[in-house]
Amino acid sequence: MKLETLRALLIEELKDLYSAETQITKALPKLVEASSTPSLRQAFANHLEETKNHVTRLEQIFERLDESPKGKTCEGMRGLLKEGDERAGEKGDADVLDAGLVSAAQRVEHYEIAAYGSARTYAELLGETEATRLLNETLEEEKAADAKLTQVARKINIEAKAA
Amino acid sequence: MKLETLRALLIEELKDLYSAETQITKALPKLVEASSTPSLRQAFANHLEETKNHVTRLEQIFERLDESPKGKTCEGMRGLLKEGDERAGEKGDADVLDAGLVSAAQRVEHYEIAAYGSARTYAELLGETEATRLLNETLEEEKAADAKLTQVARKINIEAKAA
Repeated sequence: MKLETLRALLIEELKDLYSAETQITKALPKLVEASSTPSLRQAFANHLEETKNHVTRLEQIFERLDESPKGKTCEGMRGLLKEGDERAGEKGDADVLDAGLVSAAQRVEHYEIAAYGSARTYAELLGETEATRLLNETLEEEKAADAKLTQVARKINIEAKAA
Repeated sequence: MKLETLRALLIEELKDLYSAETQITKALPKLVEASSTPSLRQAFANHLEETKNHVTRLEQIFERLDESPKGKTCEGMRGLLKEGDERAGEKGDADVLDAGLVSAAQRVEHYEIAAYGSARTYAELLGETEATRLLNETLEEEKAADAKLTQVARKINIEAKAA
């Protein structure tokens, strides 16, 4: 693919995000399953619902831009989720394992914060008001999900220290 | 590996970061080479020097904790750098390509911000004062590198829009 315009870069970034989000919808149920702390299970379960909504928003943006979301595999997210999957399969103390799941999940959140930040900037520069609004909504939810994980982790980390 | 204690999780996180940072030292010269905008080349070149320093700091931490930094490949960073490598090999308008390199690099920075944030928290809880201080120094440099990329991108994105 040749990147001759900012619009082409925006489309590429959105395809990357679409692949990332669909991968996350498949990975999150495993994280729900692997976590022991009820507040963490709940945070992952809530974020699964949000993530499904993020996929829908991206589909709305693609429709508006008259482009297809298909055709790209997000290799970055594949690597991050491979790590998350390793974490979910590890053995040890339940609180320590939960702390490790939070850490893996926050890497995923930060990927999305960076990626949605770039995509929103391009959409804004290109005058794509509706796409900018939708990307911003998701970006704010990703930041809130990251902050929620930090909050949930406080208690988990203290329990993990006592392990 | 069994994660029975928070210390074991800290060591695993540090090994992951050591693998990530050494992978980045190999990838950054390609990003310097691929970028056209002088301020971006400079930002990547500066960050390469900082990254070498981050590797040294991690080695100091491992020595202090009497552990080896070896034995783990950071799959998350492998995926992120695979994406960066794809970006560096793409064809198109020079400013659009540079905008794309910034976006890929910010994903890498955000990975590190998340990972150093977790590691610093564990080190602090475990009373590892010197490790906490070193991890915090690097964390602040990663945040500054991310902010620098955002700043450099402002002009690049506007040029890219005009492409």
